[in-house]
Amino acid sequence: MPSAQLQAIQTNPTMLERLQAILPQIAANAERAEELRQMPEENVELLKGIGLHRAFLPKAYGGLELPLTEFTDCIAALAGACCSTAWAFSLLCTHNHQLAMFSRECQDEVWGDNPDATACSSIAPIGRYEETDGGILFTGDMTWSSGCDHAQWALVGFNRIGSDGDKLYCFAAIPRRDYEIVDNWYAMAMKGSGTKTLKIRGAFVPEHRISSARDMMEGRSKGFGLYPQSKIYYTPYRPYFASGFAAMALGTAERMIEIYREYTQKRTRAYTGASVGASIPALTRLAESVHQVKAARAFMEATWREHREHGERQQYPDRETLTYWRTNQAYAVKMCNEATDRLWKALGGSNWMLDREAQRVWRDNHMTAAHAYTDYDVCAQILGRELMGLEPDPGLL
Amino acid sequence: MPSAQLQAIQTNPTMLERLQAILPQIAANAERAEELRQMPEENVELLKGIGLHRAFLPKAYGGLELPLTEFTDCIAALAGACCSTAWAFSLLCTHNHQLAMFSRECQDEVWGDNPDATACSSIAPIGRYEETDGGILFTGDMTWSSGCDHAQWALVGFNRIGSDGDKLYCFAAIPRRDYEIVDNWYAMAMKGSGTKTLKIRGAFVPEHRISSARDMMEGRSKGFGLYPQSKIYYTPYRPYFASGFAAMALGTAERMIEIYREYTQKRTRAYTGASVGASIPALTRLAESVHQVKAARAFMEATWREHREHGERQQYPDRETLTYWRTNQAYAVKMCNEATDRLWKALGGSNWMLDREAQRVWRDNHMTAAHAYTDYDVCAQILGRELMGLEPDPGLL
Amino acid sequence: MPSAQLQAIQTNPTMLERLQAILPQIAANAERAEELRQMPEENVELLKGIGLHRAFLPKAYGGLELPLTEFTDCIAALAGACCSTAWAFSLLCTHNHQLAMFSRECQDEVWGDNPDATACSSIAPIGRYEETDGGILFTGDMTWSSGCDHAQWALVGFNRIGSDGDKLYCFAAIPRRDYEIVDNWYAMAMKGSGTKTLKIRGAFVPEHRISSARDMMEGRSKGFGLYPQSKIYYTPYRPYFASGFAAMALGTAERMIEIYREYTQKRTRAYTGASVGASIPALTRLAESVHQVKAARAFMEATWREHREHGERQQYPDRETLTYWRTNQAYAVKMCNEATDRLWKALGGSNWMLDREAQRVWRDNHMTAAHAYTDYDVCAQILGRELMGLEPDPGLL
Amino acid sequence: MPSAQLQAIQTNPTMLERLQAILPQIAANAERAEELRQMPEENVELLKGIGLHRAFLPKAYGGLELPLTEFTDCIAALAGACCSTAWAFSLLCTHNHQLAMFSRECQDEVWGDNPDATACSSIAPIGRYEETDGGILFTGDMTWSSGCDHAQWALVGFNRIGSDGDKLYCFAAIPRRDYEIVDNWYAMAMKGSGTKTLKIRGAFVPEHRISSARDMMEGRSKGFGLYPQSKIYYTPYRPYFASGFAAMALGTAERMIEIYREYTQKRTRAYTGASVGASIPALTRLAESVHQVKAARAFMEATWREHREHGERQQYPDRETLTYWRTNQAYAVKMCNEATDRLWKALGGSNWMLDREAQRVWRDNHMTAAHAYTDYDVCAQILGRELMGLEPDPGLL
Repeated sequence: MPSAQLQAIQTNPTMLERLQAILPQIAANAERAEELRQMPEENVELLKGIGLHRAFLPKAYGGLELPLTEFTDCIAALAGACCSTAWAFSLLCTHNHQLAMFSRECQDEVWGDNPDATACSSIAPIGRYEETDGGILFTGDMTWSSGCDHAQWALVGFNRIGSDGDKLYCFAAIPRRDYEIVDNWYAMAMKGSGTKTLKIRGAFVPEHRISSARDMMEGRSKGFGLYPQSKIYYTPYRPYFASGFAAMALGTAERMIEIYREYTQKRTRAYTGASVGASIPALTRLAESVHQVKAARAFMEATWREHREHGERQQYPDRETLTYWRTNQAYAVKMCNEATDRLWKALGGSNWMLDREAQRVWRDNHMTAAHAYTDYDVCAQILGRELMGLEPDPGLL
Repeated sequence: MPSAQLQAIQTNPTMLERLQAILPQIAANAERAEELRQMPEENVELLKGIGLHRAFLPKAYGGLELPLTEFTDCIAALAGACCSTAWAFSLLCTHNHQLAMFSRECQDEVWGDNPDATACSSIAPIGRYEETDGGILFTGDMTWSSGCDHAQWALVGFNRIGSDGDKLYCFAAIPRRDYEIVDNWYAMAMKGSGTKTLKIRGAFVPEHRISSARDMMEGRSKGFGLYPQSKIYYTPYRPYFASGFAAMALGTAERMIEIYREYTQKRTRAYTGASVGASIPALTRLAESVHQVKAARAFMEATWREHREHGERQQYPDRETLTYWRTNQAYAVKMCNEATDRLWKALGGSNWMLDREAQRVWRDNHMTAAHAYTDYDVCAQILGRELMGLEPDPGLL
Repeated sequence: MPSAQLQAIQTNPTMLERLQAILPQIAANAERAEELRQMPEENVELLKGIGLHRAFLPKAYGGLELPLTEFTDCIAALAGACCSTAWAFSLLCTHNHQLAMFSRECQDEVWGDNPDATACSSIAPIGRYEETDGGILFTGDMTWSSGCDHAQWALVGFNRIGSDGDKLYCFAAIPRRDYEIVDNWYAMAMKGSGTKTLKIRGAFVPEHRISSARDMMEGRSKGFGLYPQSKIYYTPYRPYFASGFAAMALGTAERMIEIYREYTQKRTRAYTGASVGASIPALTRLAESVHQVKAARAFMEATWREHREHGERQQYPDRETLTYWRTNQAYAVKMCNEATDRLWKALGGSNWMLDREAQRVWRDNHMTAAHAYTDYDVCAQILGRELMGLEPDPGLL
Repeated sequence: MPSAQLQAIQTNPTMLERLQAILPQIAANAERAEELRQMPEENVELLKGIGLHRAFLPKAYGGLELPLTEFTDCIAALAGACCSTAWAFSLLCTHNHQLAMFSRECQDEVWGDNPDATACSSIAPIGRYEETDGGILFTGDMTWSSGCDHAQWALVGFNRIGSDGDKLYCFAAIPRRDYEIVDNWYAMAMKGSGTKTLKIRGAFVPEHRISSARDMMEGRSKGFGLYPQSKIYYTPYRPYFASGFAAMALGTAERMIEIYREYTQKRTRAYTGASVGASIPALTRLAESVHQVKAARAFMEATWREHREHGERQQYPDRETLTYWRTNQAYAVKMCNEATDRLWKALGGSNWMLDREAQRVWRDNHMTAAHAYTDYDVCAQILGRELMGLEPDPGLL
C-alpha cells in the first residue's frame, strides 16, 4: 500500500472520507477503464486499500459490516468518478453480504485463507445442472458477470427442481478454478465494468455451497444465526444485493449536474457569441434537475434507512414493505435518468466528442436503468398489483 | 368542548393523533365548507379544541411551540380531509410564528387577553400608507385574505419607503375593529377557505405593530431574543409562514391516491363491463403516483427537518440553503400536482360530478400550485441563478 | 331569422365563415350556458340559422352532406366560443350521419315532416329490452344524453342477444314522445351541455328503427345504398359520430392559447411588479403549447382527410386503418390537454375566479379527455395490440 | 453504374422509389460507415447513381429541382437505413439549393464542367478574413464539415464587417484545392458522417463567390431571377438548408419503431421467461411513440408543404411564418426524440451491445437534436417572443 494511501486511511475515519481521498485517481483512470474494458488494477488496489471490499464481510473474518446507508453513499460517490468501477466493485461488495448467509463451511472456503476474496455473479437462470451425490453438477455459459477478473468466486443463479416438481431459485458458489472467463461483451456503456461470460462445464457444487433465494429473503438460510450480534445479516439479501443501481444513478446524475454547471457557466453560442450560462432555460433545466436528484436522494435515503433499521431490529419486512424497497429504487433511477437527460439535451454537440466526460456519464447513467432490476415498467406493475390487492404476477420478478 | 373531543385530547398524546380523531367530522363537512365559502364553525371549534391554533404561539402565552415537522404532518392530514380548512387554518397558525417576532407590546395586545387570538393576512403590497406620528395610516382593499372571518387580527404587507428612499417590505398588524371584510371572492377551488377582502381606511398602525420582512428573516426583529429557550423562533419566518402549501399538496395528493385506489378497484367500464382495477395502465398510474408522492414527502421531510434543526441550533441559513428551502417546496408541490393529475386523468367522467370528492381534491390540489410562492417557473429561476453564480433577480421574489 | 343573421349567411359562402359571423354572440352566452345548464335558445337558433345542424343530413332531405374536414373545423371554432354548446350541438349533427344509415322508413319518420329534426343519444348499454312482434320494448334510465332538450329523437345503445346467443351492439331510434327527460346531471365542466337522463319505459321500437353498430361500420346497414352519389355515407359511422371530441380539444386549446397570450402580455407580478409577458418561461410555455396544438391539428387534419377520402372512394378501411382513426383522435386530445395544462399552470391564481374565461376553458378542455372514446390508456392498448400482431381485446372498445 | 441499379432507376419513376431500391445496401453498410468514420464509397455511388445529389441542382445544369416535400421523404427514408449517410449526403444536396442563389459566374465554376459537383460547409463564423482587391482572403480551421471528403467545394460562414461597421453574415464558396481536410472528429454518434475540419489558409475568395445570408433569405442575392421558371429558388434558403434535421429525426424514429416492434414481439424476460411482446406497458409505449412520430410527420409535412407552396407562388414569408418554419422543425425533432427514447428505455440491456442496430439508431436520433438549429430551448424563445410581440433577440439565431 503506498504511503499516501495509508495516510488517507489513517486521517479519514469514515469509509466515505477514505474514499473521497482516492477518488481523483479513480476519476483520472475513467477513460482508461473504458479502453481496458475492465477496472484498472490501480482502481482495485486503491479500493481494497481503503477496505471497501470488506464493507459487508462478516466481522468474524475481519469485515466491517457497514450500515447500508454508508455503503450506498460510497457507491454514489464512486460512480461520480467512474461508474464502470462502481458497477463492478459494488457487486463484488454486495455479494459478500449474500455469502454471509451461506453455510459456515462455504464461508470458510471463501474467506478462511483469504478475507480479501470476493465473488462475481451471473444470476439469470440460463445454465443447466444435474443432481448428483452431495450436490449438483453445473454447466452454463453464464453471461453478464461484471468484475469477474477481480473475483475469486462466482455466484450463479439457477432454478432447482424440488422433489415436488416445483422450481426453487437458488445460487451456487463456484471457485475461480472451476470456470473460464470469456471476453465477449462489447457494449455502448459501462464499458469498463469487465462484464464477461463465465464458461462452466460440469462443475461440482456441494450442497453447502448452495442456497435458495427464498431462504435468504426470509431468514432461513444455512448461515442464519451465525452472527447474532450483526446488524446487517438479519434482513432480506436482495435489496443489499441490488443497492448499487440507485446509488450509481444518483452518483452519475450528481456528477452530470456538476459537469453541466461548470461547462454552461463558461459556454457561449458558436453562432452568436451569446452566453449560455445566463440563459434562462439553461438555469431552469439546472434547477429542475437539481431538485429532482435531491428528491431522489431523499427518497432513497429514507428507503435505505428503513431497510437498515429493520435489519438492526432483526425485523423481516412484510410483503408491502418489501415491494416498496424493490420498486422505490427503480423509481429513483428513473428520476435520476430524467434529470440527467434534461441536462444532457442542453449540453450541445461538442459534448458528444469521445474525450468529453459528459457523454460517458450520460451513457453510464442510462445503463443503470437498463438492468432488469431497475425496469420501471416491471416495478410499476409489481407495486400497482400490491396496492390494488391483486396477487403477485410470477412473470414479474 | 364536547366530551368526545375532550376524550380524544386526553387519549391521544401527539397533535397528529388528536387531529386524526377529529378528521372524520371535518371530512364530513367538506362539501358544506364549499357551500358556506368559509370554514364551518364546527371545524374551527374542533381544531381549536385540540389546540392546533396554538402550534406556534409562544409558550409564554400558553402556546405549544411545535416543531415544524409535526405541524406540517398535521396540515397534510387536515388537507386530506378538507383542503379549504387546511388552507385557512394553517395560515392562522403560521401567522402566530411571525407575530412572535414582533415587539412584546404588539404580542401583548394580540394575545394578552386572548391567547386563542389568531391573525389572517394579505401580503401583496397593493395598499398605500402615509407616515404619521408614531406610526402610519394604512389604507387599502387588501385581497386574498383567507380565514379572515375567524381571525381577530390581520397582517398586511406594504413597501415602506425609508429615509434613504429605499423600499423596505414590511408587515403591519391591524386589529379586527379597524377593517371591514368584503365577501367578493368566488373561485373554482379552495372555495371554503373564506378568502375575502379586508377594506381598510386610514387605520393607524403604531410603530410597535410594524416589522420588516428582512428583520424577520435575519434575526433582527423587535421581538428577537424574547424567548431564549425557544427552538422555533431563531430562524427565518418565511419558510414557516409558507410551509402549508407543500403540506397541503402532499395531503391532497395522498388523499387522491386513496380515492383512486378505492374507486378503481371496484370500477367496471360502462361499455364493456371490463374491470378497470385489473387493467395494467390503471395499476402503473397508481404506482407511479405513489412513488412520486412518497419521494415528494421524503424530500420535504428532509427540508423541513433541516429548517427545524437550524432553528434548534439558532443557526441562520446561508443564502444557498435559504434558496433551497424557498424552492424545494415549489418542486414538491409540482411533484404532487403531477401525481394527482396522473390519477385524475384516469378516473373517468363520473368523477366530474359535483358530489364526488375526487373532483374537489383535484381542484384544491391544483390550487396549491397557483400561489405566487409555489410558482415553479419563478423558483427554478431563483435556484438556477444561485447555482450558476448569478446575482438574485429582484423581479423574482 | 334576424336580418343580421340572414345577411351573414348570404355574405359568407362557407359554413365556417357563416359560423364565425355568429361566434361572438355564442361566446357572449357562454357563462349563461353554464347557469342554464343547457344551450341557450339563442345559440340553437343561431346555429340552426346558418344550417349547421344539416351538415350531415342527406341532401334528399335538404341536407348539406359536408365533408368531415369542414365540419370539424366548425366544431373546433365553436368550442373556442362555448365548448358546452359545441359538445351538445356537434352530437346532434353527427347523429344525423348515423341516422342516414338507418332504413328509409326510419329516416322518413325522423325527417319527412321536419328536416330540422335532430337526435340526441345515450349509448352505454345500460338499459334492458324484450323482443316483441316486429321490434322490441325498451326500458332504461339512459344517462349522459347531451343536448337532449333540443332533440326530437334519441338514439339509445343496447346489446341485442341474437338467436345464436351472441351479443350484437345495436342502436334504437326513439321519438321524443316516448321518453321523459330527467334533469340530474351536475358536473364540474361542460356544464352547459344539457346532459341529462332519458327515462324510457317499455317504449316500442319497430325493427326499421334498429340498426347494429357493426352493420354501420361495414357498409351493410338497412340504409346502405340509399344515396349512391353521396361522398359521406359510404364509410364507418363511428369516426364521424365521435369526431367532435378532438375538434373540441383543439378548439379549447387554441382558445386557451389566445387567452394566455393576451393575459400574460399585460400581466405584472403582484409582489414585485415585474412583467410576466417578458419572462422567458412564460414565452417558452406559450411556444411549446402552440407547437403542440399545431402538431395535433396537423395530425387530425391528416386523419380526417384520410377518412373523408376513403368515403369519397367508397372504400372501407382495413382494421389497422380503422384502429388509427379510432386512436389518433385520443392522442390528439391528449396533446391538446397537455398544451392547455402547460398554459393554465402559469396563469396564476386570479384566473381561478369563476368569472374568468380561462378556468372554464380549462375545465371543458379537460373533460374532452374524460370520455370513454378519448381514454388514451384504452387507445394505446388498442393500437399497441394491433401493431404487435395480437388479437383485439374485447374489453377494450 | 451496375445494371441492377440502372434497372432500379428505369423501373421506379419517383426518387423515393429509386431510393428504396438501394436502401438495403446502404443499411448493410451502416456499421462499416461507423468504422470508416465517413460514408462508404459504395453509398455515395449508389446515391449519385439515382441522382439524389441533383435534387436541388438547377435544371439548367441538369438538375431535378425536386419539391422540398419529395426531398425530405427521401432523407427520412435514407436516415432509417444509415443516418450518418443521410446527414452527410443531405447537406451536400441542400447546399446546391443555396449555391443556386449565388452569382451565375460562381455556379458556372462549380457546375460548369461537373454537374455532379457538390459542396460541404462549415458555417459557424469562427474563421477570420481580410478584405482585398476583388474579394477576401479567408483563413480558418473550419470545424464540423460533414461529408467533406465527397465534396468538391466548401461553403464557409463568416461575419463580414460592412462600411457602416455592421456585421453581415455571409457565405464564401471555396474550391477543394484551397483547403486541407483534417480528420480530428471522434464523436459518440453520427460517426459515419465524415465530419472533419477544413484547414484554410489565406484562400482568396472573389466577390462573385460571396453571398450574404440575408440576401438569400429575402430574394435579393446575386443569383436572384436566374431561373424564372423554377419553383424552388424563390424562397428563403435556410429552411431548405436545414430541412434534413427533422427528416432524419423522423427517419430514425420510424426505424426505432420497427426495431422495437420486431425485437419486442419475440423477446422473453431473462429471469422469468415471460413474453415481453404481450406486456401491456410494452404495447402502450409502442402506441404512444407511433402516435407521436405520426403527429410529428403530419406537422412537418404541413410545414414543408407550406414552404414549397410559398416558393411555387414566389411568395416570401412574413416574419411570423418564417419563425414557424424555423421552429416547427425543432419541435418535431423533440417529438421524435421523445418517441425514440420511450422505446429505447424499454429495450433492455442487450440492445446496448455495439453490434445492435438499436443503439446506433438511438445515438444518431439524439444527435439530430444536438445541432444549434434544432435546439428547442432557443426555438421556443424565438417563437415565444414573436407571438408575445417582443422584438427578436439577436443572441438567438
